[in-house]
Amino acid sequence: MSKKRKIPNATLNRLPLYFKYFKQSESNGVDRVSSREISEALDIDSATIRRDFSYFGELGRKGYGYNVRALVKFFSEQVQGTGLKHVILVGTGNLGSALLNYKFTNIHDKMSIIAAFDNKDSIIGNVINEVEVLHTDKLEEVIKDHHAEVAILTVPGEAGVKIAERLEAAGIKGILNFTPEKLEVSKKVTVHNIDLGVEMQALLFYMKHK
Amino acid sequence: MSKKRKIPNATLNRLPLYFKYFKQSESNGVDRVSSREISEALDIDSATIRRDFSYFGELGRKGYGYNVRALVKFFSEQVQGTGLKHVILVGTGNLGSALLNYKFTNIHDKMSIIAAFDNKDSIIGNVINEVEVLHTDKLEEVIKDHHAEVAILTVPGEAGVKIAERLEAAGIKGILNFTPEKLEVSKKVTVHNIDLGVEMQALLFYMKHK
Repeated sequence: MSKKRKIPNATLNRLPLYFKYFKQSESNGVDRVSSREISEALDIDSATIRRDFSYFGELGRKGYGYNVRALVKFFSEQVQGTGLKHVILVGTGNLGSALLNYKFTNIHDKMSIIAAFDNKDSIIGNVINEVEVLHTDKLEEVIKDHHAEVAILTVPGEAGVKIAERLEAAGIKGILNFTPEKLEVSKKVTVHNIDLGVEMQALLFYMKHK
Repeated sequence: MSKKRKIPNATLNRLPLYFKYFKQSESNGVDRVSSREISEALDIDSATIRRDFSYFGELGRKGYGYNVRALVKFFSEQVQGTGLKHVILVGTGNLGSALLNYKFTNIHDKMSIIAAFDNKDSIIGNVINEVEVLHTDKLEEVIKDHHAEVAILTVPGEAGVKIAERLEAAGIKGILNFTPEKLEVSKKVTVHNIDLGVEMQALLFYMKHK
């Protein structure tokens, strides 16, 4: 397989699940796991797992099972290697506050939320988990000054669309989007959508078809 | 394909994404979509989409594109058909409060969170979006009295494992698990895990490999 070959999106979608599984295996003291074990734990068929792992070079060679510690290291480096560490958060309601209290250092040593934004005067100036809430007017200034490239979007409903446009213009390259809206940004910006309603539906579907 | 044939897990995992896509298409006034259009919107290859849709009987026949309205109706009935409507929530911190304010009626007309639980005395008795916060001691009683079968778990860290055992014993059949813990319940209980750290990682992976 040529080195230039891009990792397919379907494989990328599964990487975080693999990473989480390997981290859990490591903390349980497991040294090696087979593709069959991964398959059973994650409900992904073994052939797909072997194909996915073929993209990871030497580490993806199965031998007598995958080396857990080496793969955890590989995945961590993949994330750390992005050099992305300055995150901003827009919308400090309940969901935003929950995320401000989340320990992102679990997944990336140097990652932190450096600023939070809201447009409610009653909230501006509050400090949540050591992060000060600033007025949304200051978005562009802070993004540029701190070279922030990742944003978490937790504003209510439609406000997200306009904010996303401002985030892109100011230099943000990736958005974790918790609003139900489809963001209108260019292809230069990576958007990952999390919709809590979709997750609840997923649960109901699984329950129905169990 | 025999009627007894179970829908594979990989297909089930994609159903909520299809549902969301069809709902968006419907609200945009789109009548029909092709598997190629779905493929581009959701980053799933067309062959997989056609195979998934083959499980939906007549509606899944492609013809000249899939009928958007008919499929939205089909998916809605799938969810409503579960008869699952009474949801309880355990852990009314920021994330729990965010979920209490979420409009689940968007995905299921009759679905609602009927009770919320916490073990902090300062919170007991509070009302969040018309739902009263009760002491966790009352979990079993409320689940049984209201025949609740779905639970949202938003307690901090390790507390989730013990709560999940109590939920199963009291009759809960499905758990939307926002804790990072692996729940120790029997196979009778469906668990759907959402890990905010994993979602952030997913974003970083996509940004790196864009």
